[in-house]
Amino acid sequence: MPADVRLCAIDWGTSSARAYLLDRHGDVVAQRQAPLGIQHIRNGDFERALSVLCSDAPAGVPRLACGMIGSRQGWIEAPYRTCPADIDALASSLARVDAASLAIVPGLCCDDEHGAPDVMRGEETQIVGVLDDEANERRVLVLPGTHSKWALCEGDRIEAFVTFMSGEIFAVLREHSILGRMIVPGEDATAFERGVRTSLRDHAALTHDLFTARTLALTAKLDGAGVADYLSGLIIGAEFAAAARWLVPRGSITTLIIVGEAPLAARYRAAAALAGFSASIGPETAAARGLWRIARRAGMLAP
Amino acid sequence: MPADVRLCAIDWGTSSARAYLLDRHGDVVAQRQAPLGIQHIRNGDFERALSVLCSDAPAGVPRLACGMIGSRQGWIEAPYRTCPADIDALASSLARVDAASLAIVPGLCCDDEHGAPDVMRGEETQIVGVLDDEANERRVLVLPGTHSKWALCEGDRIEAFVTFMSGEIFAVLREHSILGRMIVPGEDATAFERGVRTSLRDHAALTHDLFTARTLALTAKLDGAGVADYLSGLIIGAEFAAAARWLVPRGSITTLIIVGEAPLAARYRAAAALAGFSASIGPETAAARGLWRIARRAGMLAP
Repeated sequence: MPADVRLCAIDWGTSSARAYLLDRHGDVVAQRQAPLGIQHIRNGDFERALSVLCSDAPAGVPRLACGMIGSRQGWIEAPYRTCPADIDALASSLARVDAASLAIVPGLCCDDEHGAPDVMRGEETQIVGVLDDEANERRVLVLPGTHSKWALCEGDRIEAFVTFMSGEIFAVLREHSILGRMIVPGEDATAFERGVRTSLRDHAALTHDLFTARTLALTAKLDGAGVADYLSGLIIGAEFAAAARWLVPRGSITTLIIVGEAPLAARYRAAAALAGFSASIGPETAAARGLWRIARRAGMLAP
Repeated sequence: MPADVRLCAIDWGTSSARAYLLDRHGDVVAQRQAPLGIQHIRNGDFERALSVLCSDAPAGVPRLACGMIGSRQGWIEAPYRTCPADIDALASSLARVDAASLAIVPGLCCDDEHGAPDVMRGEETQIVGVLDDEANERRVLVLPGTHSKWALCEGDRIEAFVTFMSGEIFAVLREHSILGRMIVPGEDATAFERGVRTSLRDHAALTHDLFTARTLALTAKLDGAGVADYLSGLIIGAEFAAAARWLVPRGSITTLIIVGEAPLAARYRAAAALAGFSASIGPETAAARGLWRIARRAGMLAP
């Protein structure tokens, strides 16, 4: 059992959960991943899942979670806070499951430019894990994934954000559309770049361009082993084109911090370069760091 | 058995096939639909399927088919003709299955604005069934479906066309994405209109806007029974926005002829009105009429 543990921090999503034990410095001293996402919890027995996730934590260590565990389908609902929202807004709005000594970070909501709501749950904590108190400049964080998020931040505050369903659209097209049938397993960075560039063109039209994955392959102008990467490039390119437009009234910031697992973050960094952004890749343990910062701000940590 | 039959015309697609018997005036005197699309043909036994489709036709009546039967996965490949292409180009390029006394109309191909190929197979015949020799004005035909086609035509010539994967994208999102789980069965014309208008906005971003089907429903700003129509509206609206841009260098024609089955044609006409087009709905038997015209031009019809 690791000594000197001050927090059990849990990034608890839909399909899986990852628990971190952090020491007095906020450093991760142990972690554990398990397929205990909320969709896999039977009969609402979150307590048992929590005891598995925290089994290495000393008794009495505070527990803080973020992600879908705080959604309506989770353990207890942690209502969305509205943007702009800073770390204090999150730390002062934790939902509590008293019987399990668990606190849960709320998600964030934000109206889009047409008045439709946008939401995030879990990403706000990753973002807080990348931000810090001292930096006052505005920054744009990109969190690629099933539902990619672009967040405009200033200091410790998340000003606004926008979601793109890039990961999910890629997955359903790959697995269930006629385009998926053109795919031969393989990787092809050139095909990815070609897809990104196609979607970055003026007047690109994604629902047309996607069809060219089929026609280019049928006419041997695209290798079967490049179809998946070309499709990925089209969809991610459309995300960058739209996000760049979203940033125009927000100062057209061109420096990004990409937060996500290494292969996807690298893919987004390549797209960023093609779209005229410079991008750095943030830490993979952003969620653990964010939970630590929120726990500290909420007074949950022993001195 | 109908008397005076001059042509057995077959619209032979991927999932189903429809055979028409036409009399000396080109009028449909009988028709038969069967689940004999090329994906359902076992062991390449197209001959048996043809005999079922033409079982009501008198012996010796010529047979002309269009659609995926002429693709690489069909009976015999009828290579694509390149646009611009008129009825003579189609009639002079029929592929022949001599043993079965069957002729097959070729598909069309056309490079898009970025040099990627676009293709159609079957729609060219429907288009020819709507066009006529006398009209010389330019017309835009819209053929909604799994892969919607917009075709710019002049007289009997198809100048150019563009494909949008609207129907397939709607289907895979409805059946396989998180958005599908928000759907409660129902119809809601207002939700459809709301989706179309959202996608017609300047700088609309489909992969973001699709996510609002979820967030609007989660926040009770969209009824579950309206989610499917809202999604449909978003996707069809994106098609109209892109097609309108495609038409700009082609004279920005604002009069459309929509060719398709009644419910879908009506949905497209509603979207057309919102997008500033005026639209009429073409005949549902356009394929039969097109096959008749091509057969006549190819000299296949007895005098």
